[in-house]
Amino acid sequence: MKANHGILTSFIICILMVATGSVKTFAQDQRKVRMAKLEIHSADLKAYKEALAEHAKTAVKVEPGVLALQAVQDKTHPELFTVFEVYASEEAYQFHLKTPHFLKYKTGTLKMVKSLELIEVEPVALEIKPELIKH
Amino acid sequence: MKANHGILTSFIICILMVATGSVKTFAQDQRKVRMAKLEIHSADLKAYKEALAEHAKTAVKVEPGVLALQAVQDKTHPELFTVFEVYASEEAYQFHLKTPHFLKYKTGTLKMVKSLELIEVEPVALEIKPELIKH
Repeated sequence: MKANHGILTSFIICILMVATGSVKTFAQDQRKVRMAKLEIHSADLKAYKEALAEHAKTAVKVEPGVLALQAVQDKTHPELFTVFEVYASEEAYQFHLKTPHFLKYKTGTLKMVKSLELIEVEPVALEIKPELIKH
Repeated sequence: MKANHGILTSFIICILMVATGSVKTFAQDQRKVRMAKLEIHSADLKAYKEALAEHAKTAVKVEPGVLALQAVQDKTHPELFTVFEVYASEEAYQFHLKTPHFLKYKTGTLKMVKSLELIEVEPVALEIKPELIKH
């Protein structure tokens, strides 16, 4: 009877872990994926690009929860930028907001940003060749 | 004298290769990076997502020149999709347009697409953790 109780307790704990997303294999569902659309003042384009590139590199390198930061600049309208962001979870994102490199980027570029729009998105496909990372 | 000619010819060929971007180490500069913004008819959202996911998976898997296809759906406006595309070169992109899987996706989703905007972009940062690919 005691053994049965043990099995039942383990089973309930497992169900709770799955339900709360504590199981590692369910990590994919916890991801926070977002797009940031920014308009930058024309005079600050070079400085902004440098700050953005440096910030993305540092964040993905040092933070376990920042899975990808991909940023692009519109060729026709060079003042428009899109950042495609993938975090392991909402908690990872909240942690990111408090890091020294994010705060440095945020305060350093505050006056360069004309407008910022944050768009929560659902991933449909995240197909990436390993070669893209090696570059 | 003949040997010198040989060295000179090789040197000129190297210069030309670098100038025309034929050298592999210069491949990064040849990349074509683009964003596609789509609006899909509400009734077709499920079918479109499936077609898009399948197409992205196949293209990145079988085409050496398709480095990444990442697609997301706006959570607030589910009819809006953004595809973030990285091709090895303009030639790789032109090749992609003629593949059976692209043509299947294109013809299969033609009536689902309300609007399509293609935006040529310049990469500022492409920072991706290897873990993102493993999922």
